[in-house]
Amino acid sequence: MEGLLTRCTALPALATCSHQLLQYAPQRFHHCAPRRGKRLVLSRMFQPQKLREDQVLSLEGRSGDLTCKSQRLMLQVGLIHPASPGCYHLLPYTVRAMEKLVRVIDQEMQTIGGQKVNMPSLSPAELWRATNRWDSMGRELLRLRDRHGKEYCLGPTHEEAITALIASQKTLSYKQLPFLLYQVTRKFRDEPRPRFGLLRGREFYMKDMYTFDSSPEAAQLTYSLVCDAYSSLFNRLGLRCVKVQADVGSIGGTMSHEFQLPVDIGEDRLVLCPSCHFSANVETLDSSRTNCPACQGPLTETKGIEVGHTFYLGTKYSSIFNAQFINVHGKPSLAEMGCYGLGVTRILAAAIEVLSTEDCIRWPSLLAPYQVCLIPPKKGSKEEAAAELAGHLYDHITEVVPQLQGEVLLDDRTHLTIGNRLKDANKFGYPFVIIAAKRALEDPAHFEVWCQNTGEVVFLTREGVLELLSRVQVV
Amino acid sequence: MEGLLTRCTALPALATCSHQLLQYAPQRFHHCAPRRGKRLVLSRMFQPQKLREDQVLSLEGRSGDLTCKSQRLMLQVGLIHPASPGCYHLLPYTVRAMEKLVRVIDQEMQTIGGQKVNMPSLSPAELWRATNRWDSMGRELLRLRDRHGKEYCLGPTHEEAITALIASQKTLSYKQLPFLLYQVTRKFRDEPRPRFGLLRGREFYMKDMYTFDSSPEAAQLTYSLVCDAYSSLFNRLGLRCVKVQADVGSIGGTMSHEFQLPVDIGEDRLVLCPSCHFSANVETLDSSRTNCPACQGPLTETKGIEVGHTFYLGTKYSSIFNAQFINVHGKPSLAEMGCYGLGVTRILAAAIEVLSTEDCIRWPSLLAPYQVCLIPPKKGSKEEAAAELAGHLYDHITEVVPQLQGEVLLDDRTHLTIGNRLKDANKFGYPFVIIAAKRALEDPAHFEVWCQNTGEVVFLTREGVLELLSRVQVV
Repeated sequence: MEGLLTRCTALPALATCSHQLLQYAPQRFHHCAPRRGKRLVLSRMFQPQKLREDQVLSLEGRSGDLTCKSQRLMLQVGLIHPASPGCYHLLPYTVRAMEKLVRVIDQEMQTIGGQKVNMPSLSPAELWRATNRWDSMGRELLRLRDRHGKEYCLGPTHEEAITALIASQKTLSYKQLPFLLYQVTRKFRDEPRPRFGLLRGREFYMKDMYTFDSSPEAAQLTYSLVCDAYSSLFNRLGLRCVKVQADVGSIGGTMSHEFQLPVDIGEDRLVLCPSCHFSANVETLDSSRTNCPACQGPLTETKGIEVGHTFYLGTKYSSIFNAQFINVHGKPSLAEMGCYGLGVTRILAAAIEVLSTEDCIRWPSLLAPYQVCLIPPKKGSKEEAAAELAGHLYDHITEVVPQLQGEVLLDDRTHLTIGNRLKDANKFGYPFVIIAAKRALEDPAHFEVWCQNTGEVVFLTREGVLELLSRVQVV
Repeated sequence: MEGLLTRCTALPALATCSHQLLQYAPQRFHHCAPRRGKRLVLSRMFQPQKLREDQVLSLEGRSGDLTCKSQRLMLQVGLIHPASPGCYHLLPYTVRAMEKLVRVIDQEMQTIGGQKVNMPSLSPAELWRATNRWDSMGRELLRLRDRHGKEYCLGPTHEEAITALIASQKTLSYKQLPFLLYQVTRKFRDEPRPRFGLLRGREFYMKDMYTFDSSPEAAQLTYSLVCDAYSSLFNRLGLRCVKVQADVGSIGGTMSHEFQLPVDIGEDRLVLCPSCHFSANVETLDSSRTNCPACQGPLTETKGIEVGHTFYLGTKYSSIFNAQFINVHGKPSLAEMGCYGLGVTRILAAAIEVLSTEDCIRWPSLLAPYQVCLIPPKKGSKEEAAAELAGHLYDHITEVVPQLQGEVLLDDRTHLTIGNRLKDANKFGYPFVIIAAKRALEDPAHFEVWCQNTGEVVFLTREGVLELLSRVQVV
């Protein structure tokens, strides 16, 4: 037994991180959970920023165009950088926030039975001709030919691909259903007017889920489970979303809802009934209508950003591709489908849009790229002696609060005043900013802690800081 | 203080998984760390398989073409499914393995200071014209036009994009360097002959890193750090890689190495010197050469699959885009660059190619989609009473070994014999297969444990199983 254990462990053993390398890279920036003494430092961050607004817009090639708060802030603090109209480089902070968002999405989708797949972007024209969308999608589809002249589009959505995949399974039984298959991948849409940064791009990340059920009733249950998972997701992010009845558009189907974040720059117009909770995208209503179709009460109007969209598709796609299963009577039957989208990069920008002030980014707590920014005193200042305490605090946090490993950033630009660095930290929106200044030299030392999402500032001892931070949820 | 804590915690609180939903989905497949009593069951897996070889090849549109072991196995057990020539759907097991591989890559890259970015696939033609690669890459580039007639290619690599991004930074100081920027994204190459499944596709995942240093010496240090990180990565995966001197090809630069996995179906020819450890891709040698250039000893030849490639670029790209930094003397100076690729999807296929038998997949332990498959007795068999014990064992494992949450699969197809399910489990390559049969009814119960990577089979009590599994490393 002991021998077996040794041998079994020998295989996947080896070091979790190649620590032996660290000795050769003493001054390098360490980004993943660093070893004791290796600290994440701000001065080594790659964060293209300090763009003036005119530079920002000319980089996008549309100097006369409007911008919005989230786009401006994301460009200014180095979250994104324009590559071409509607296409952005996602910079390190954004990649971290997006990876956290994807983890939350994975949890919610897998809780209801979602299985993750990954389909190619190159989508053969014949699939799109079968559903007539090769023509009906018009100029929104980015199209290309390979070296053999074969036509493709860059998938803006994957109903055709997934339905053809399911149809290729000849022996599917009703016992295996439902299937809830989803992916998080780039999508491509040649928007007539890309704008607002990640809010309306031409290349963006989406979570798209496709569901296959054995009956309309089962498909309805799946539909409500997914809608509930979406609501749970937005709740966890602290975003107040409205679920409204929506138009099915080019996707089709018989029922559709949008998840909208109410905000002024939103491109959608929503009506809400304060008395009976009816809510709809105005697209779905007779344009002359001013009263609620459910209770006849007066409707209020607001604008919103669409962050999620659900469709009950029925057999629209399964009938075209012949996606069947063997039903309880042993007969082939068409699968009942739904499809469900979440704008991943759009949720990031929309969250920043609704949570931030004009000058300072605020993140949903779970998604903040780093949870804590630690500011030691200025070099040569009266408080300089507190620098060592700040370093020890850094090490203590990452030791005592394991979920914060890789989440604490040290603002080592000690040629700057604390005030200047605090201003930056405010702008970047770390949920917790901890300053080691005068009172860090008291006995016991006290640190100034800014809780950005509550707006509170408190002085805490090292133990107080650790207790506070131990309650931070990290995804 | 207490009040502050309460308020600060209130924000990111809420449940980690939307457990309230679970009551509505009692019979659904649960994929992420499921709650007690919610078990991952095999019968609900989406795993298109049972393809005959002729179906496999005709799905790819190349019925006369050759295949290889990894492609055949991956298609047969439902790891991938062809979408079009050289483009594959990645199915749930593969997505899980790939996500694990990306986590290992992230750890290794971030240990040496790598920062993760994400660049668009749509790459403007003007960038590629600037380096002349718009022409020199020929038909390998997939090209398209947007609705305004502007030309793009689908990025097969991102030297142009990242160098232009760095060049847009006008105030970079030598103090900020080095920057090691990497991404894990899809790449596109219109291969003249896509084949061998994920080994040579037209759309595939790559990790590409680009480094910017302030001097050739610093760039050389970065080069060796990255090479060491690659070696560490392959060590952790248990893959014996050879680092060989290589041709710089269309990327350019002055020094290049490939990381090759020696295997017969490899498309590269390598020569190795057993006496002095010289190794090279034959491309880099005079074709008439048969002796080692270093020690003049005889060379041996082998074939290999290229899984990584490193380039020292010097200022080839930074001079074209004018990617500068302010040097120690306050003068602008061109950044010294390197670029470093890892074939992410290719590593998965190559690992399966070298580790598997003709009929059974074997994974690098760290990457196995699920670590444990638990097989309860057949329904109606003499051992049926052991089914409950198997269920309890499942729950105990996920409770006592937290890193195995979401890693244990219950093969609930109890209409099949244990033998049939063991055969499947063998084929799928779970590192540990645990069977509850006759001896599970002894007191104390003993479970049959197959350790696939050592080839050992042992009978262990529940405590023995837990002790064995607690040593499994999961990424």
